[in-house]
Amino acid sequence: MDKKDTPNNIQPGENTAVLLMHCPDRPGIIAILTEFINDNGGNILYLDQYVDRVNSVFYMRVQWDLTNFTIPADKLRDYFDTLYAQRFDMTYNLYFTGTPQRMAIFVSKMSHCIYDLLARYRAGEWKEWNIEIPVIISNHPDLRYIGEQFGIPYEVIPVTRENKPEAEAQQFAILEHYNIDFVVLARYMQVLSDNFINRYPNRVINIHHSFLPAFIGSKPYHAAHQRGVKLIGATSHYVTADLDAGPIIEQDIVRITHKDTVDDLVKKGRDLEKIVLARAVEKHIQHKILPYGNKTVVFN
Amino acid sequence: MDKKDTPNNIQPGENTAVLLMHCPDRPGIIAILTEFINDNGGNILYLDQYVDRVNSVFYMRVQWDLTNFTIPADKLRDYFDTLYAQRFDMTYNLYFTGTPQRMAIFVSKMSHCIYDLLARYRAGEWKEWNIEIPVIISNHPDLRYIGEQFGIPYEVIPVTRENKPEAEAQQFAILEHYNIDFVVLARYMQVLSDNFINRYPNRVINIHHSFLPAFIGSKPYHAAHQRGVKLIGATSHYVTADLDAGPIIEQDIVRITHKDTVDDLVKKGRDLEKIVLARAVEKHIQHKILPYGNKTVVFN
Amino acid sequence: MDKKDTPNNIQPGENTAVLLMHCPDRPGIIAILTEFINDNGGNILYLDQYVDRVNSVFYMRVQWDLTNFTIPADKLRDYFDTLYAQRFDMTYNLYFTGTPQRMAIFVSKMSHCIYDLLARYRAGEWKEWNIEIPVIISNHPDLRYIGEQFGIPYEVIPVTRENKPEAEAQQFAILEHYNIDFVVLARYMQVLSDNFINRYPNRVINIHHSFLPAFIGSKPYHAAHQRGVKLIGATSHYVTADLDAGPIIEQDIVRITHKDTVDDLVKKGRDLEKIVLARAVEKHIQHKILPYGNKTVVFN
Amino acid sequence: MDKKDTPNNIQPGENTAVLLMHCPDRPGIIAILTEFINDNGGNILYLDQYVDRVNSVFYMRVQWDLTNFTIPADKLRDYFDTLYAQRFDMTYNLYFTGTPQRMAIFVSKMSHCIYDLLARYRAGEWKEWNIEIPVIISNHPDLRYIGEQFGIPYEVIPVTRENKPEAEAQQFAILEHYNIDFVVLARYMQVLSDNFINRYPNRVINIHHSFLPAFIGSKPYHAAHQRGVKLIGATSHYVTADLDAGPIIEQDIVRITHKDTVDDLVKKGRDLEKIVLARAVEKHIQHKILPYGNKTVVFN
Repeated sequence: MDKKDTPNNIQPGENTAVLLMHCPDRPGIIAILTEFINDNGGNILYLDQYVDRVNSVFYMRVQWDLTNFTIPADKLRDYFDTLYAQRFDMTYNLYFTGTPQRMAIFVSKMSHCIYDLLARYRAGEWKEWNIEIPVIISNHPDLRYIGEQFGIPYEVIPVTRENKPEAEAQQFAILEHYNIDFVVLARYMQVLSDNFINRYPNRVINIHHSFLPAFIGSKPYHAAHQRGVKLIGATSHYVTADLDAGPIIEQDIVRITHKDTVDDLVKKGRDLEKIVLARAVEKHIQHKILPYGNKTVVFN
Repeated sequence: MDKKDTPNNIQPGENTAVLLMHCPDRPGIIAILTEFINDNGGNILYLDQYVDRVNSVFYMRVQWDLTNFTIPADKLRDYFDTLYAQRFDMTYNLYFTGTPQRMAIFVSKMSHCIYDLLARYRAGEWKEWNIEIPVIISNHPDLRYIGEQFGIPYEVIPVTRENKPEAEAQQFAILEHYNIDFVVLARYMQVLSDNFINRYPNRVINIHHSFLPAFIGSKPYHAAHQRGVKLIGATSHYVTADLDAGPIIEQDIVRITHKDTVDDLVKKGRDLEKIVLARAVEKHIQHKILPYGNKTVVFN
Repeated sequence: MDKKDTPNNIQPGENTAVLLMHCPDRPGIIAILTEFINDNGGNILYLDQYVDRVNSVFYMRVQWDLTNFTIPADKLRDYFDTLYAQRFDMTYNLYFTGTPQRMAIFVSKMSHCIYDLLARYRAGEWKEWNIEIPVIISNHPDLRYIGEQFGIPYEVIPVTRENKPEAEAQQFAILEHYNIDFVVLARYMQVLSDNFINRYPNRVINIHHSFLPAFIGSKPYHAAHQRGVKLIGATSHYVTADLDAGPIIEQDIVRITHKDTVDDLVKKGRDLEKIVLARAVEKHIQHKILPYGNKTVVFN
Repeated sequence: MDKKDTPNNIQPGENTAVLLMHCPDRPGIIAILTEFINDNGGNILYLDQYVDRVNSVFYMRVQWDLTNFTIPADKLRDYFDTLYAQRFDMTYNLYFTGTPQRMAIFVSKMSHCIYDLLARYRAGEWKEWNIEIPVIISNHPDLRYIGEQFGIPYEVIPVTRENKPEAEAQQFAILEHYNIDFVVLARYMQVLSDNFINRYPNRVINIHHSFLPAFIGSKPYHAAHQRGVKLIGATSHYVTADLDAGPIIEQDIVRITHKDTVDDLVKKGRDLEKIVLARAVEKHIQHKILPYGNKTVVFN
C-alpha cells in the first residue's frame, strides 16, 4: 500500500482544471461543454452532474487534464465568458490544481480537530490539491505547541466582546499577509462578525457539535443530554451571518445511551467532529461543493 | 433456523416476573433483591442495572422464572411494599409475562408502520411477551383492509378540531372495552389531548419523522429539505402534553443528498420510521424502559 | 402527507422509457443520446452516468417521458440498434414503465421478508413501476396464510435432494404460466440449480444473512456468534452458479455486543434482511442496476 | 467546554482500583464483592456485569475510589486470593489507575493511525488512565519525523523474512528497556512470531483493514474492490498465533459505491481504521475488555 491515495486516479502534481457551474437546465449543455474540452485537447478525468428538476437548474463539475489542452489556463475564463456564460446564463468557477490553495486554521483550546487536519496535511493526503497551511490563528495561547510541532506560525489574538473589531482587523491583516483563500474553524469558540463573513463568502468552514438545526448555539452537548436524545451529531457548514444556519456540507451522528454523561458526549463527539470537519474540508479543497441558496450540492 | 427467536433464552409461554425499579443509590441493593429472589426459588434470567452517579439514583431491571418461585404472584407486590419500598425509597413496577399485554394501534392513512407491527405480531415475534392487538383505531377509513387482512376490528372515528372531545370519548370507550394497556401511534396524524395523555401516562408511544428536537411539528421532511440537511431521522417517544417533547425511547437516521426531493425523503423516512417505532414498541413490551424526568433508561 | 411518494417527480401511470447501457468510453455519448431523445420530443426525467476510468467503460441510465415522443415504443429498439449499438459498441436494455413487471416471491418458513415486500406492494409504493406479484412459491405450506391475506396464489412445491429437478420443473411451469419476469428469494432456504439460474440471469435476487464474503453458506449467525464479531450484516445479490458469490446489490450491518446470543443475532438480523432485500428489489424494478462482470453499478 | 472529559466523573489523577473478573455464575457474587469494597471504605464508581446464561459464566468489572479504602493496594491481591478466588473459582485481574501503563506503538509507513493515537495522548485524553508512550518502533525510517514532533524515541528495526528472529530479539530488548505493558500495531505491516505473541498475550492490539473474517491477510481493499462489496470495514483485535483470527475488540464499516476505486477505498478506510483502533486502545487502557475463549466481553 505504498501508492499515494488518489481519487479518480489523478496523480499528485498533475495540472488539471475544474469547472464548477450551474445554470437553467436545457438540453445539450453536457454535450457542448465536453465537446469544447475534448476538441481543445483536454482529457476529462471526472464529470458529475445533477439536475434539480423542481427548479430546473443544471449543476455540473468537470475536471480535465491540462497537459495537452491547447487553450492557456489564463485565457480559459475569457473563452467561457464569451462562449457560454451569457448563452447559458451560467454561473461558474474555474480552479486549477496547479495553483496553491492557502488554508488558515482558527482554533481555541481543543486540539482534536486541528491535530486531525494537520496530520492529513503532513501525511500528504491533500497534496494533489496543492494545499498550503501557512498560519494558525487562535484566541488562546494553549495550542501554541501544535504550531511548533508542525512548524506553522501560531498567532494569538485574544478576543473579547469589546475588542472584536480590532481583533478581526488583526486577523484580516494576517489572512492577507499569508494570502489566505479559505478559513477552517477547528472548534474556534468565537462568533465571526458579518464583516468577516462578507469578506470570505462560502470560504469559512465551521464544525458545530450537534446535528443542526437541533441545538444551535453554545453547549449543545449539555442541551442534548438534558433532552435525553439517543444520538448526538456534528455538522460542518459554511459560515453565514445567521449563527449555525449556513449551508450544511456534511453531518454525521453517533449513538449514545442513558449511561452517557455530558462528559461522555463531549468525548464521543470529538471523534465525530474531527471526521465530519475533515470530510467537509476535503470536499471544499476538491471543489466539489456548489452552494446554492442556503444549501449545497456536494459531488462525490 | 427453525427455532423461535427468544432473547436471553426465555421460552415462549414461560411464566416470569419482571421488576423494574429505581431508588436512591446505596450499597447492597442488588445483593438484597437478588438474594430475596434466589432464596424464594426464583431463577434469575436477566439482570441489568445502571447507576446515575451524578444524581445518585440506582436503576434496575430483574427478570426471573416463576416456576419454582414460592411466593404467589399476587402476593409479590405486598412483599416488595413491606420489605423494600419504604426501606429503599424505591419506586417500582412488577410485570408478569403470563399476563397478556393489550396494545391498540392508532393509524391515519399511511400503512408502513402498522403493516410492520402486524407482521411481527402475526409472525409471533412477541409471543413470549403475551401481546394481544384486539383493535385498530383510525380517523380515516382508508386502511380498513388491513384490519380485515389480519382479522382485527378497525374502528373509524373521524376527528376534527371541533369534535375532538367527543371523538376522544369514543376512543376511550373502545380502549376500555378492549381493556387496552398501551397505545401505539403508528403515524396517527392527530394531536392527543392532555386528558388522553393523563389517562395513559408513559403508555402512548409515538413515532415522529425527524431526529427530535429538530423539526418539531408537522411536515418535518419539508422542513428538512428546506434546511438542506444531509441526514434525516425518526424518533420514537412517549407522548406527553408538550408536542413532540416527551421522553425519547429510540432514534435513528439515514443519509440523504442534494439529489433527494421531499418525496425521496418521505420514502427513505418510511423505512426508518417503521424500524424505529418497532424497536421502541419492543423495548416497551419487554418492560425495558424506565422513564425518569423527561428521559428514559432503556436496558438492552 | 397525502401525496404519493414519487422519486424524481415521476407520476404513477406516466409512460416513460428507461435506457440502461454501457460501452467503451468515448467523448460525446451523453450529448448524442440526449440530443436524440430531445430531438424526438422526449423529456428527460433522469440521467445518471458513470465512467470507469480504469477500464474505460461508460455506464448510463436515462429515463424520459414518452408523452410527446415521436418514435413509437416498439420501434425504439430498431433505432438504437441501427444508429448507436454498433457505432458505440453499446450493450443496452430498454424498459417501458407502461409495461408490467411480474415478480414471483419464493419463501420457506420465515415471514419477515415476504411481509415487508407485500406491505410495500399493497401500499402502492411500486405503482409507478407497474409491479405485479401474481404468485408465491414455497417449499413449505407454513406461510400459506400470507398468500390468503394478500389474495395471491401460494404454490407449495416440496424440495428434497432427490426431487430437485422435478421440483424445479414444476417451478418453471408456474413461472411461465404467470409470465414471471424476475424472482425474489425472500429467505428461500434452497439452493437453485444452474439450470434455474441460466433461465433467469441477473433476474433472481437473494438475501443472504451475512456481510458477504464473510460467512458464506448456511447458519451464518451461528458462525458470526462463534467468531465473536461486533457487527452482523445482510447482503442482497443476484444469484449465480457460485453459492453466495453473485454480484452484490446492497449490504448493511447492525452492531451487536457480547450480550447477544445467536437468537438475538437472528432477531436483529431480521430487520436488516428485510430492509436490505427491499432496497435491492426497488433498485431492480427501477432498472437502476447494471451488472458487469461480477459486480454491479447501482445508480441512485 | 473547558472541563477535562472524564467518563463516569472519575477525575484525572484519582487513585482507583479496577477488578476485572469472571467465574461460574452463582447467586450473590455482586453482593459479596460490593459489600467487601463498601465495608472497607471503597466508594464504587463503576460496576458493570454480564452473565453468559448459555455457559453459566459471570463477568464483572468494578472500579472504586481508593481514597478512604482501608486495605493497602499491595495487599489487595492477597485478600482476593484468600477470600474469593478459590471460593468462586474466580479468574481476575486487578489494576490501579495510579500505576502508569506503558504503551509501545509499532508502525510501518502509514501515519494516520499513529498520528491519531499521539494526538489523543498529547491532548491528555487518557490522562486519568496514566498512559505513557515511551517508544515508537518501526521497520522503516519514514515516520521518524513523527517521533521527533512528539519527542518520543523512534527505533528503526528493519525486518526481513530472514532476520525476523534477530529483529524481534531487538524489539524485545527495547520493550523491556522501556518496561512496556502493551503494544499497539498502528498499521505495522509485519506478522509477529508466536514467540512475540506468547510474551504479550492479549497485550498486542492490531488494526486490520477489513471487517473480519472477510478479507483476511494482505491487500484487503483490493480484494474488497474485486468482490464488489458495498461497504468496507476495519477490525481491531488482540493478536494471536492465527493470522487476523484473534479476539475481536471493535469493528466498524463505511459505505462505498461502484464509483470508488481501490485508492478511494484506501482513503475511506483510513478514517475508519484510526477510529476503530483508537476505540479498541481506549477500551484496553480502561480495563474494559475481558477476553474469553476467542472472543471479548467489552464493557461500556
